[in-house]
Amino acid sequence: MSTLLKPSIQPFFPPQRTLMGPGPSDVYPSVLAAQAKPTLGHLDPVFVGMMDEVKSLLQYAFQTQNEMTLAVSAPGSAGMEACFVNLVEPGEKVIVCRNGVFGERMRQNVERVGAIAVLVDSEWGLPVDPNAVEAALQANPDAKFLAFVHAETSTGARSDAQALCALAKQYGCLSIVDAVTSLGGIELRVDEWGIDAIYSGSQKCLSCVPGLSPLSFSPAAVEKLKARKTPVQSWFLDQTLVMAYWGNGGGKRSYHHTAPVNALYALHESLRLLAEEGLEAAWARHAAMHLELRDGLEKLGIEFVVPENARLPQLNAVFIPAGVDDAAVRSQLLQDYNLEIGAGLGALAGKAWRIGLMGYAARRENIALLLQALGHVLAKK
Amino acid sequence: MSTLLKPSIQPFFPPQRTLMGPGPSDVYPSVLAAQAKPTLGHLDPVFVGMMDEVKSLLQYAFQTQNEMTLAVSAPGSAGMEACFVNLVEPGEKVIVCRNGVFGERMRQNVERVGAIAVLVDSEWGLPVDPNAVEAALQANPDAKFLAFVHAETSTGARSDAQALCALAKQYGCLSIVDAVTSLGGIELRVDEWGIDAIYSGSQKCLSCVPGLSPLSFSPAAVEKLKARKTPVQSWFLDQTLVMAYWGNGGGKRSYHHTAPVNALYALHESLRLLAEEGLEAAWARHAAMHLELRDGLEKLGIEFVVPENARLPQLNAVFIPAGVDDAAVRSQLLQDYNLEIGAGLGALAGKAWRIGLMGYAARRENIALLLQALGHVLAKK
Repeated sequence: MSTLLKPSIQPFFPPQRTLMGPGPSDVYPSVLAAQAKPTLGHLDPVFVGMMDEVKSLLQYAFQTQNEMTLAVSAPGSAGMEACFVNLVEPGEKVIVCRNGVFGERMRQNVERVGAIAVLVDSEWGLPVDPNAVEAALQANPDAKFLAFVHAETSTGARSDAQALCALAKQYGCLSIVDAVTSLGGIELRVDEWGIDAIYSGSQKCLSCVPGLSPLSFSPAAVEKLKARKTPVQSWFLDQTLVMAYWGNGGGKRSYHHTAPVNALYALHESLRLLAEEGLEAAWARHAAMHLELRDGLEKLGIEFVVPENARLPQLNAVFIPAGVDDAAVRSQLLQDYNLEIGAGLGALAGKAWRIGLMGYAARRENIALLLQALGHVLAKK
Repeated sequence: MSTLLKPSIQPFFPPQRTLMGPGPSDVYPSVLAAQAKPTLGHLDPVFVGMMDEVKSLLQYAFQTQNEMTLAVSAPGSAGMEACFVNLVEPGEKVIVCRNGVFGERMRQNVERVGAIAVLVDSEWGLPVDPNAVEAALQANPDAKFLAFVHAETSTGARSDAQALCALAKQYGCLSIVDAVTSLGGIELRVDEWGIDAIYSGSQKCLSCVPGLSPLSFSPAAVEKLKARKTPVQSWFLDQTLVMAYWGNGGGKRSYHHTAPVNALYALHESLRLLAEEGLEAAWARHAAMHLELRDGLEKLGIEFVVPENARLPQLNAVFIPAGVDDAAVRSQLLQDYNLEIGAGLGALAGKAWRIGLMGYAARRENIALLLQALGHVLAKK
């Protein structure tokens, strides 16, 4: 009965960074403060009332009237998995568009449910090509789903979600859309565009803390879920069980898992701020700040990875100037300016930086800091 | 291009409850405050240093030197699922002890990975019976795992984890242990008892906010994971990928998913407070507070569900007195005293209350409030 020694560890005081990487983004001060409010029980009527508000706010953010709209109690990659494990059954065929890391992650999810992924590849930095998607849909009349990433966080490319979802509908497929980086940052209209399943992340353009994944299923997706012949392979992500707690269609809520109560306070506040600003105003702000950043970066001689017509305002992937030490620059920005920008990911590792202008980070003072700091650091190299 | 109307929602101000249900428990004030500290990037060296401290603190709390010790970025039920999806392969046999809701949940997890659950049932309110387990191990020499719940949150029964893990070892099985409600509240020694896989929850005796699941795998469990012939069915919970981020064995950390940064600040602080108090002192505090609560409840004529020798100090399941309206009493405690106690779950729904004395809630002032309030409400009935 010897007890292992206890470590002597001091309270943690993080520095105040400016977060201009691919997420987490700068969090609104009132969102941070919301989290620190007293914890309620997950079945407390007051908490349950707040969850109803979260649902309304998510419906607004997604522009949907989908009854099955909620936040998965885990990060965006769990939201992605929730879509695939709930909707796709083993042996079914999914057309997966891959133009970056997250399309590839979709493929892995499809294969882990025992389904078949048909890949439509595009070059990194380019949007998904609707013509190539249509050809794949024609060549695979047995495909049941079209899955793609609206805003590729690894490259900064924006794909035409409206056109892709129209193609999915035309060929009898349900659409599964990754909106992790798009929600709140660029135009996104779930009902109008006919999106069937969509997931996002709390830590991007919502400027909430990381850890939650907003999710919405259309009535057609819910029908597919209800018609499953096999059980959902994940108990934790089984939306038929989760909805008994989130209260789909009214009635008493029953316990499934303990909700991340305080994180949901934060999500409530971040969505409330988005509604207060207004979706269209938030989209316009991201677009305007992106142009300001672009002009400044071009003055520094820095070039964008993505062609102008497909750039995401909230995620600016730029080529690292020749001869510049990638890690040294990022490290110096962090040390000297408490400023975080993102490294390249996957095929762009070592070749690009990713500069985020997400949510609360899409502000003129952030851009001024970044341009001044980056210019200074590059001049010293 | 019509935009759905935005809901008009006010900031949320939760009341200050005293949480004496089955969890979430009262959260330490400094843990709530820790969450509100500025968000760091998930690859920021300062944040990564804090994660190393979380790992050391978890090793202390679990009493283990297991290298694979971390927090799953989701609630306890995801921790449970992480154990089964990583370690158990389709077709393998798992002896599952079922003496409440969470043993049943283990069965569902086993079956959802395509494995075979052999059930050892005990009456609700009783601990798992080691003799029945040994009989099942003898009758199933091909079983690969023994899975059980150390502290059954649905009934308040404590099972003899040390004896059960010794049996598992004797019969060549790996043990999978649910310590959601036990960690920090009662004696638990992962290495000394030979536990192979264990998971817990942040919102019970650690008195942290809900949403994270501490997890630890022994070297034997890691070996089993590495020897898998089939891929882990969950991408999000695949520990071979997660460990590339949590830094198993040193080296550069690589991105898997965005860690719930602020929730991990909270976990760091709650584990730090546990270490500061000392594990054995925390166990003793829970035991002492339980006796004080028991004496008071007995004076009110209230009886325990679980026999004295198997009671969990941190989760007191008691029978609702005859003729008393379950929901009305809980509702009045909440409305008049801001005091939450738990309803019965599963077979005990409507028959029992669950009174938690977990972590920061295991304090004399909480007990005084509960006894006074409950006595008052019952007297009025």
